[in-house]
Amino acid sequence: MDPRGRQVSVERWGVYELALDGPAAGNPYRDVPLRAEFQHRNRVVPVDGFYDGAGCYRIRFMPDAEGEWRYVTRSTASQLDGRRGTFTCTPPAPGNHGPVRVAGPRTFAYADGTRYLPLGTTCYHWNHLDDLDREEETLRVLADAPFTKVRMCLLPTGGMDPPRLAFAGDSPETLDTTRFNPAFWRHFERRLRDLLALGIEADVILFHPYDEGRWCLDRMSPEEDRFLLRYAMARLAAYRHVWWSLSNEYDFNTHKTVADWDDLGRFVQRHDPYQRLRSIHNGTRMYTYERIYDFGRRWITHQSIQHWDARLTARWRDACPKPVVIDEIGYEGTAERRWGNLTGRTLLRQLWHAAVEGGYVTHGEAYPDAGRDGTTWISRGGRLHGESVPRIAFLRRVLEEAPADLVAARREGTYRLEFTGAAQPAYRDVELPDGGDYRIELIDTWNMTAAELPDGPHRGRVRVELKGRTDMALRIRRVA
Amino acid sequence: MDPRGRQVSVERWGVYELALDGPAAGNPYRDVPLRAEFQHRNRVVPVDGFYDGAGCYRIRFMPDAEGEWRYVTRSTASQLDGRRGTFTCTPPAPGNHGPVRVAGPRTFAYADGTRYLPLGTTCYHWNHLDDLDREEETLRVLADAPFTKVRMCLLPTGGMDPPRLAFAGDSPETLDTTRFNPAFWRHFERRLRDLLALGIEADVILFHPYDEGRWCLDRMSPEEDRFLLRYAMARLAAYRHVWWSLSNEYDFNTHKTVADWDDLGRFVQRHDPYQRLRSIHNGTRMYTYERIYDFGRRWITHQSIQHWDARLTARWRDACPKPVVIDEIGYEGTAERRWGNLTGRTLLRQLWHAAVEGGYVTHGEAYPDAGRDGTTWISRGGRLHGESVPRIAFLRRVLEEAPADLVAARREGTYRLEFTGAAQPAYRDVELPDGGDYRIELIDTWNMTAAELPDGPHRGRVRVELKGRTDMALRIRRVA
Repeated sequence: MDPRGRQVSVERWGVYELALDGPAAGNPYRDVPLRAEFQHRNRVVPVDGFYDGAGCYRIRFMPDAEGEWRYVTRSTASQLDGRRGTFTCTPPAPGNHGPVRVAGPRTFAYADGTRYLPLGTTCYHWNHLDDLDREEETLRVLADAPFTKVRMCLLPTGGMDPPRLAFAGDSPETLDTTRFNPAFWRHFERRLRDLLALGIEADVILFHPYDEGRWCLDRMSPEEDRFLLRYAMARLAAYRHVWWSLSNEYDFNTHKTVADWDDLGRFVQRHDPYQRLRSIHNGTRMYTYERIYDFGRRWITHQSIQHWDARLTARWRDACPKPVVIDEIGYEGTAERRWGNLTGRTLLRQLWHAAVEGGYVTHGEAYPDAGRDGTTWISRGGRLHGESVPRIAFLRRVLEEAPADLVAARREGTYRLEFTGAAQPAYRDVELPDGGDYRIELIDTWNMTAAELPDGPHRGRVRVELKGRTDMALRIRRVA
Repeated sequence: MDPRGRQVSVERWGVYELALDGPAAGNPYRDVPLRAEFQHRNRVVPVDGFYDGAGCYRIRFMPDAEGEWRYVTRSTASQLDGRRGTFTCTPPAPGNHGPVRVAGPRTFAYADGTRYLPLGTTCYHWNHLDDLDREEETLRVLADAPFTKVRMCLLPTGGMDPPRLAFAGDSPETLDTTRFNPAFWRHFERRLRDLLALGIEADVILFHPYDEGRWCLDRMSPEEDRFLLRYAMARLAAYRHVWWSLSNEYDFNTHKTVADWDDLGRFVQRHDPYQRLRSIHNGTRMYTYERIYDFGRRWITHQSIQHWDARLTARWRDACPKPVVIDEIGYEGTAERRWGNLTGRTLLRQLWHAAVEGGYVTHGEAYPDAGRDGTTWISRGGRLHGESVPRIAFLRRVLEEAPADLVAARREGTYRLEFTGAAQPAYRDVELPDGGDYRIELIDTWNMTAAELPDGPHRGRVRVELKGRTDMALRIRRVA
């Protein structure tokens, strides 16, 4: 901090924040534009500021290059205009690898090149609660869990009575879509920072169709949608671990068309200074994979799919050269609804089916928490009860030890994962690529064991006895 | 028999057969046309005859009405032309319900109105063997099994060396597509009659793509195809339990187009006097259900689908008003190939998923028979080793006790089957239609038990405790 209380340095990919006093009268959210231009050498990055209530304005910025940065503010309010300053961007602290980017047609990586595996989980409204103990518990559970991403909503469902809303007002009658509630956002950001500290990406779901006509946030005008998106980006985009999921189950929203979603997606693409990852997630169109969404659209960075069958991964992968993340495939649990009663084995199997084809499946759990109010992990976070989680941790270790692009490695003949799923073959005849020596391990994905086949290394055709066991994987590595 | 050895009577839907001596020189299969017109009252049915070798010609006919029939033969060979006779069609014997027909958009029935449930199995070449003991064993196994249909091929695969071929010749070099081998057909017919005696329909697969360029029967000219089809119909169509499956996995055959298959399907439609059931079965096009085949074509009587996921049944059912029969979904077994290593539980689950939506799944088994040559039920018949068969018998009893059209019954609110599949819900809340009293039974599809819920009959909303068990069905019947 400098003598005026301003930050004088920030690590690379950290958040530089500038607070300014400005007008509090009228509706500053709507009526007082504020932005800043951040400059590093000859590159200028324009960034929106935001009104944080009580006469306080803020500008948040994530510098992506080390060295000196300078900035100047722009506003129609004279108090906020032409403010200048400098700060130093220092090397990232250990554990800070920068934002996640798409690194290839099937892979993600952090900005520093470190590989990123999107093994997500789903806690739609874990941080919209009045129950801070449960929010803290969710964080403790996540700290011990294998997940590297959380899907979480910005807006409440029709059935919720949250303590705070993104917009001003505390009831459907008093909700005001021309103003925001800074207290909501400050709490949301606190939880984002908690996730960041855990090394977990936040896949923020901007809209969803579960409003039930109560808050009517699923049927706002395009202007209202953009007003919300711009505020959300001004506040949240500087956090390097934020992703944008335009909508959950977009096609359940009868108030918007695909053209509307494309408009909103392009709006985010235009205004996000950092080009965070962007996608959109379908509800119904699962029978016809071609129409889940046209993931080829330029504003979309990766395929965020809902489908019940991860065996289609290769199809989606080959249809569009963007990473496949099946963000919903059904949840482990005992819920009555069809989406929430997979066995742990079935869910784990889906993760493996996707993984061997270079795709990823997001976890979710719907065991009503008997010790609590009967709500579930996917809805409110809390404790995990399922059988899949430790096995997902095992899968994560297997994938961390594997090449980042399994499909490319298979084509090159250097490495291969195969998976039997629900099948119970007596054996599998493995055809090893010509001219190579290979080690073969038999992995029991459920019991989390790996055993190398004797008499290796192997060449040519090898019969691997599976003895009719399900959920077995083969790990095949070239050694020469 | 009359004094000249001719049949004087035949039961309704039985086979009337006329044998005639005729020319044996040259190539009578190709060069001697023979047909007959069978007349009942003022209705005339034209029927092709066929050459059966050694100067013997035959005409087979299935009368569909009781009373006196007369016939007259037509041929360019004077010996075979203008032969006349009469016979009496008597009432069908017990157990003879006539041919199976499509009875509605989701149902089949025998000609006498008796319901038919297509619970098929697959034994592609069980009756092409030199091993008559094994053929007889297959028949004994089928007699005790719950199956009502067998899918079986007319033509050999490239890997087979069958003792007899449909065409003349006994090797690829000597095979002659202008002549047939009556010994092959007589054996094939013997086995058809054995199935008929067991009350099992024969879904005869006319072409398949497994020739591997050896016999080249998958790449004959349209004229050769039609020559074969016409002979097959002349010999086999009179058997009331024969169905025509134009091809297995038609799209694996690169020598024929969909237009070719449509031409052949229409050819069968035009020449089959009895309009036996006709369909065609796909190999690859499983990702895009719209393109499996256009089952709306007029020559197709029912949808014969290959797909791995019976949960799509409602989709196919609603896309085309013809019964859905998933004739291939993978086989129970421990084969290495992906199509042959389902667990019994997985296969059974698929049958239930289809059944509750008004569709049917054909069984198959690929446990290499260790006591034999290592071949499997789907390939050569023999013994059954799997766990699904007794449970399919249980499903059959459930379906026999249910309305023929489960979908219509559900819409009417009189009867409903629900199935949980691989899900493990703690409970299911059943919404009973207004104003009715219902009995609810909980069926364990794997353990083959059914238990009525206490305190019935029920009304309104009923919570059924499932306790997280998979593969449970609910049977809900209106009692008032």
